[in-house]
Amino acid sequence: MITREQLDQARRTAAAFFEKAGIVLTEEEKAGIEVADFGLGDLWRTGLEDVTYVNTERVCAKEMVVTPGQTCPEHKHPELNGRPGKEETFRCRFGTVYLYVDGEPVKNPAAVPPQGVYTVFHEIILHPGMQYTLLPGTLHWFQGWPQGAVVSEFSTTSHDESDIFTDERIRRAPEIA
Amino acid sequence: MITREQLDQARRTAAAFFEKAGIVLTEEEKAGIEVADFGLGDLWRTGLEDVTYVNTERVCAKEMVVTPGQTCPEHKHPELNGRPGKEETFRCRFGTVYLYVDGEPVKNPAAVPPQGVYTVFHEIILHPGMQYTLLPGTLHWFQGWPQGAVVSEFSTTSHDESDIFTDERIRRAPEIA
Repeated sequence: MITREQLDQARRTAAAFFEKAGIVLTEEEKAGIEVADFGLGDLWRTGLEDVTYVNTERVCAKEMVVTPGQTCPEHKHPELNGRPGKEETFRCRFGTVYLYVDGEPVKNPAAVPPQGVYTVFHEIILHPGMQYTLLPGTLHWFQGWPQGAVVSEFSTTSHDESDIFTDERIRRAPEIA
Repeated sequence: MITREQLDQARRTAAAFFEKAGIVLTEEEKAGIEVADFGLGDLWRTGLEDVTYVNTERVCAKEMVVTPGQTCPEHKHPELNGRPGKEETFRCRFGTVYLYVDGEPVKNPAAVPPQGVYTVFHEIILHPGMQYTLLPGTLHWFQGWPQGAVVSEFSTTSHDESDIFTDERIRRAPEIA
């Protein structure tokens, strides 16, 4: 649950990040930036801000912000209606992204996850101009550190409401107080 | 047919446009910018420069440049192997794009097409932050004017070699002298 004040503040913060990354948004897009605290009530530690450009039956494109130290929590995209799960490519536009996925865990992760349930620690570090493609069903989480990050996502259709989070307390759909 | 010198010049020009648009590319991406003259040998009038970030069985994302007055010629994306044609969203990042698609023709098109075959004149003007989604099979062409344009494309799989151009002289695959 986030308050209206937190929502407005997070939108302003995210808009400033998009501007720093040289990404032009319409006023309508800025006013509609999605802010998710994933139901944990600790937005600046566990949260995500994003703008969806397009999400059709076949293609989705978004811009995402993680503020300094903010983490998008561990999840995966399941098969849906007999179709393979979401395939997504993350491309870093600004800042640094610490991305963790299924696979050989790194010994000393560069990012410290927030309070919650984190099980995958195969580390990928993305600087501006670098990208990584996640195949369907891959568990992943990411953090922007130290100056936060702006990340473009190119993917198949997005059904955020179907995402499976490792931490069962998480609720994907934002609730505004 | 373009010469190696034209190719290098076009890549440098496109890289400068991407930089103006605030888009960070790796050195490898800059060195691999695709330059297409569509076989007409008049690159700065009929041409396109682009970088493909990802092109899998399901998703494709590119950045494109049209230099001042340069036109990506009229074409459509056909059904392929029983799957619907390419669906694409163009999002303007820098400059102005004059996009023409199937539909009610505008009386006085803002863009003058170059020498060639152009049959659709339904006009869409995109400034930075504006976008348009083309459904499969839609004839379209676009021009960057007056200062050229940088355009992101979010789409289903790209099979450029299957594109159907209205001007039958056109060859999509670049030939370097």
